Amino acid sequence: MIVIMKPGASRGDVDGVAARIQQLGCTTHISEGQERTIIGIIGNGRPLDREQIERMSGVERTVPILRPFKLASRDFHPDDTSFSIDGVVIGGVQVIVMAGPCAVESRDQVLETAHAVRAAGAHVLRGGAFKPRTSPYSFQGLGEEGLRLLAAARDETGLPVVTEVMEPQLVPLVAAFADILQVGARNMQNYALLHAVGEAQRPVLLKRGMMCTIEELLMAAEYILSHGNHRVILCERGIRTFEPYTRNTLDISAVPLLKQLSHLPVIVDPSHGTGKWELVEAVSRAAVAAGADGLMIEVHPRPEQAVSDGAQSLKPARFAELMRNLRPIAAAVGRSL
Amino acid sequence: MIVIMKPGASRGDVDGVAARIQQLGCTTHISEGQERTIIGIIGNGRPLDREQIERMSGVERTVPILRPFKLASRDFHPDDTSFSIDGVVIGGVQVIVMAGPCAVESRDQVLETAHAVRAAGAHVLRGGAFKPRTSPYSFQGLGEEGLRLLAAARDETGLPVVTEVMEPQLVPLVAAFADILQVGARNMQNYALLHAVGEAQRPVLLKRGMMCTIEELLMAAEYILSHGNHRVILCERGIRTFEPYTRNTLDISAVPLLKQLSHLPVIVDPSHGTGKWELVEAVSRAAVAAGADGLMIEVHPRPEQAVSDGAQSLKPARFAELMRNLRPIAAAVGRSL
Amino acid sequence: MIVIMKPGASRGDVDGVAARIQQLGCTTHISEGQERTIIGIIGNGRPLDREQIERMSGVERTVPILRPFKLASRDFHPDDTSFSIDGVVIGGVQVIVMAGPCAVESRDQVLETAHAVRAAGAHVLRGGAFKPRTSPYSFQGLGEEGLRLLAAARDETGLPVVTEVMEPQLVPLVAAFADILQVGARNMQNYALLHAVGEAQRPVLLKRGMMCTIEELLMAAEYILSHGNHRVILCERGIRTFEPYTRNTLDISAVPLLKQLSHLPVIVDPSHGTGKWELVEAVSRAAVAAGADGLMIEVHPRPEQAVSDGAQSLKPARFAELMRNLRPIAAAVGRSL
Amino acid sequence: MIVIMKPGASRGDVDGVAARIQQLGCTTHISEGQERTIIGIIGNGRPLDREQIERMSGVERTVPILRPFKLASRDFHPDDTSFSIDGVVIGGVQVIVMAGPCAVESRDQVLETAHAVRAAGAHVLRGGAFKPRTSPYSFQGLGEEGLRLLAAARDETGLPVVTEVMEPQLVPLVAAFADILQVGARNMQNYALLHAVGEAQRPVLLKRGMMCTIEELLMAAEYILSHGNHRVILCERGIRTFEPYTRNTLDISAVPLLKQLSHLPVIVDPSHGTGKWELVEAVSRAAVAAGADGLMIEVHPRPEQAVSDGAQSLKPARFAELMRNLRPIAAAVGRSL
Repeated sequence: MIVIMKPGASRGDVDGVAARIQQLGCTTHISEGQERTIIGIIGNGRPLDREQIERMSGVERTVPILRPFKLASRDFHPDDTSFSIDGVVIGGVQVIVMAGPCAVESRDQVLETAHAVRAAGAHVLRGGAFKPRTSPYSFQGLGEEGLRLLAAARDETGLPVVTEVMEPQLVPLVAAFADILQVGARNMQNYALLHAVGEAQRPVLLKRGMMCTIEELLMAAEYILSHGNHRVILCERGIRTFEPYTRNTLDISAVPLLKQLSHLPVIVDPSHGTGKWELVEAVSRAAVAAGADGLMIEVHPRPEQAVSDGAQSLKPARFAELMRNLRPIAAAVGRSL
Repeated sequence: MIVIMKPGASRGDVDGVAARIQQLGCTTHISEGQERTIIGIIGNGRPLDREQIERMSGVERTVPILRPFKLASRDFHPDDTSFSIDGVVIGGVQVIVMAGPCAVESRDQVLETAHAVRAAGAHVLRGGAFKPRTSPYSFQGLGEEGLRLLAAARDETGLPVVTEVMEPQLVPLVAAFADILQVGARNMQNYALLHAVGEAQRPVLLKRGMMCTIEELLMAAEYILSHGNHRVILCERGIRTFEPYTRNTLDISAVPLLKQLSHLPVIVDPSHGTGKWELVEAVSRAAVAAGADGLMIEVHPRPEQAVSDGAQSLKPARFAELMRNLRPIAAAVGRSL
Repeated sequence: MIVIMKPGASRGDVDGVAARIQQLGCTTHISEGQERTIIGIIGNGRPLDREQIERMSGVERTVPILRPFKLASRDFHPDDTSFSIDGVVIGGVQVIVMAGPCAVESRDQVLETAHAVRAAGAHVLRGGAFKPRTSPYSFQGLGEEGLRLLAAARDETGLPVVTEVMEPQLVPLVAAFADILQVGARNMQNYALLHAVGEAQRPVLLKRGMMCTIEELLMAAEYILSHGNHRVILCERGIRTFEPYTRNTLDISAVPLLKQLSHLPVIVDPSHGTGKWELVEAVSRAAVAAGADGLMIEVHPRPEQAVSDGAQSLKPARFAELMRNLRPIAAAVGRSL
Repeated sequence: MIVIMKPGASRGDVDGVAARIQQLGCTTHISEGQERTIIGIIGNGRPLDREQIERMSGVERTVPILRPFKLASRDFHPDDTSFSIDGVVIGGVQVIVMAGPCAVESRDQVLETAHAVRAAGAHVLRGGAFKPRTSPYSFQGLGEEGLRLLAAARDETGLPVVTEVMEPQLVPLVAAFADILQVGARNMQNYALLHAVGEAQRPVLLKRGMMCTIEELLMAAEYILSHGNHRVILCERGIRTFEPYTRNTLDISAVPLLKQLSHLPVIVDPSHGTGKWELVEAVSRAAVAAGADGLMIEVHPRPEQAVSDGAQSLKPARFAELMRNLRPIAAAVGRSL
């Protein structure tokens, strides 16, 4: 960390900051410029709280030098992380497609969709049993019955299942049925939940919060990793901006940036990222071209009757066409699909 | 709701949408313009899912007519809501100031601060026992011990206590010590938590998420209200924007807007809203002038040693000066403080 | 347009609005719901000012039905617009790459870069002679001398030239040297400039403002088109968000969305869109995969000595590799490069 | 400036950066930490281009130490700037109110409004003769005729006039009629215009761009100041965010922050800042309480017939009430109005 003193900081101010830093077990390095004094801090391996220092007399601001994430960082773990889920390798040469309905609605709906996405080449079945909804009056998901239907679909199709868990105390229940635990965008900074999935024996798909920076996403991953679960998949799903034509603004640069900063696999959710089914295919192609390790796509046999997010769901035939169109893109970047 | 059809929508498209709406128990009203057909929907009291309709053939988009919140709406409850907590009336003529440290660190720290803010005229003591921290390596709060220290400070000073609760299963524990349960910005859409505090016998201070709209804040309040707890305080604490000089951008217009849309009391947190102690006084004055029912301000006897958010905390002497300067503003808008 | 009345609007309010609308030459269509009255307006072909109506007694808000752009709309002009500039067809089957330095610095620099990008397969030379700089103390470009150097590079390499024009009165000068006039992001709503390039006899490359919506970009195009210049190229170059790791957030969904809403060619600028040369290739691949008609990329022989935007410029060798890697992506979406 | 090298930067990388910096006339100061090497730069008074350095081998990023603005900075000019326009002192103890219609529409409209706002206590008449409009089909202002009407209103009422100028070549014409030249939000980074008003003999009211940071606003002021015009008024008028209920999000913290960073007077425009007349009074009170030196408010005798921005205009009676309600707030912060 570097401390930038105000133009008029006194000798006593500088000494006070230096003394405080040394008291915290760090070494200082004072550099007096013509207009400002800069204090460099040589750390002792433990993070310093910038705000404590920023409150001291004569301090203008502080600048962090080291990235705050460690276990999630590529500096710490230079090779790509990959792991296998029932034979599906995430983070390998194959681009993994997770597809299925936004919400599990009925046995017929989930089985019909599971068979259709499997036939089109999807590798994982997605579907929500517990649904975070803005309105208390909207459908909140089938709950445990939804988990049972997903498990039934896995038994019939062989596709591993990813589904969202919203509460720490429900992690054991969801983990009993699902192959991958999803932490949704609204819960990316629900630390009790991150702690709980960090102790679970299941891979975790961590969605970027719509209000969260890339650094915050990696810090959320750090929570999970630091509790002992190393199988974390990062998911870019769009951030909130001023643009009203799309539901969110999908941050395509996040894909190469996350791959550069971290060793964890990175997937993209073009369905939530755009909120419009007409845009899903183009954005899926972009994600694969940008280097994503996978995609998460909403498919529904009758989107106009879906109980949630119908506007962003593809029909099975359209999804099959998307899969066909993605294969040459995957090949163009040296991957399969 | 109104459905706007695409320019080229066919007769069959229009009939299909109308049939679907009628099947959902609503009445339609079709209006054919020169370029577009518009379908008005006369509802049956239950909310319709816009996305289901948006996915239908020939539909361009839908427009909601009614606000999605009911119990939180001033249309539903025209008079201001106010309630008393140990003699402190929230939502009345007096502007209520909640002050104290960001985090409870020690018995001495919390007692010293509690006495100081009480002497300066604060009405409620704030302090965090459970702290949401971006990094898993940062101080996470004293937990139950912190709750006990807050309760001790209440016993000594008579100030009611507000503190954050982060997990549904901790609501009973926190409610056993605190007078007001705080739902933090990161948890504004943690629906399990909203459900839990909605069933608690304590008033709830609900902070606006840093990337949440005013409508979403009111929908989060609706969750709490719909579970039976009618004592909800809304808190504007700044939203995330592109401006880097402040930690957040405090949305001052939210104060009159929330008062207009809702009957619930509205307070402002200028400490998180700016992230800089030098700005807290000016923004506090602005909040009271704009009509806020209260303020939530961080005060710490030694901010440069605070374990969190030191940069936005006032020293007690500065806080006392702020209180003195706020009184004429409160008087200028017909209130006391 | 639709007018949504407040819940308590009186009969007189509704009659007043209807009378005003009829006075403006439009027909009304009143629909009384249980909670609200809605007034539909059937227009006379001229746009109505929503704000006039919104100010009337009893009105809650208005909802526009028609898109405000006409000449830029695909509804108005269903086929893709394409045009040729010195044999380079923009908006055709070939993906067009515009490459060159951010700023023209010297004869050697621009000629060396022009030859290098031509050898790698670029189709158009870009370079700034007039530079918009945040600081009045930064290099502002070589001005007319820069234009002459660009023209010299065109003479040597045969590449058409695109360069920015910042003032209406300089349009004739820039048009005398350049093949394509660029309107920069900061000037997207400089209406005098839009008017001036709308009357020029040169194609215009219009960059999206960093805080402008897609609708505003199309309205800026509408200004140019409505002054008689039909050769407009839209350019997505990233929008401003809260994410600090990249200079801007490139809105990849804007590519398919603009192609759907408009007939105009759409290109992407990954250099400004990311601000980091390490991300340019991945985002370029994404743009082509998403359906962009072209790319605009900064190339500099010695980026570490560039007088502006060095951090986002590729060296020629890296650019050549990018071009090689883009070709299979272009082929995968049925295009050449 | 400080250069932060990558973890794996070689000895040669560090030497290369140091050599380059020395070649640019600066001195370096190298500090080797356990994980990173940091290079401090002691400048020679001229700004360095960060991006040049960031592109060098082994560099992770650079950190600016000095603020980029000089003439606009309070460090440079510790006392508040104030100046008189026809006896109206801007930046003094009195809060200055500029009021009038968004657009000048007719002689009657502007005279009626001017008399009304003067009677209510306004100090300056505002009104647009040249209007920046998103649509080429909207009313663009009366132009020179509008300027004449404003001058006529000044002659009748004695109120100085502020009006927008949108093009560099129109500065002399507008300056011939107006007392204060306004640079609008969309033109805050129109550098040719900033240059032109910097050479004019009239005070300039500079509006913050809706997409611009506080630092960029001060850099735009720096353009004007550096061309010799020292009479610049800064205006906060709301920034663009994700919140849809208001037209913009008024950044109230900008008021104390600008007063702290700069010596220039700061005013607030609550009409554009909110876009809703119902919110104008509350936000005006907040602005004065926060320390603003003035306000700019839209007033129209018949807002429902206004040709632009009717929804945010107050009627004269409401404006007079606002003025009455502002006086005790001004007094509470030690000012008059």
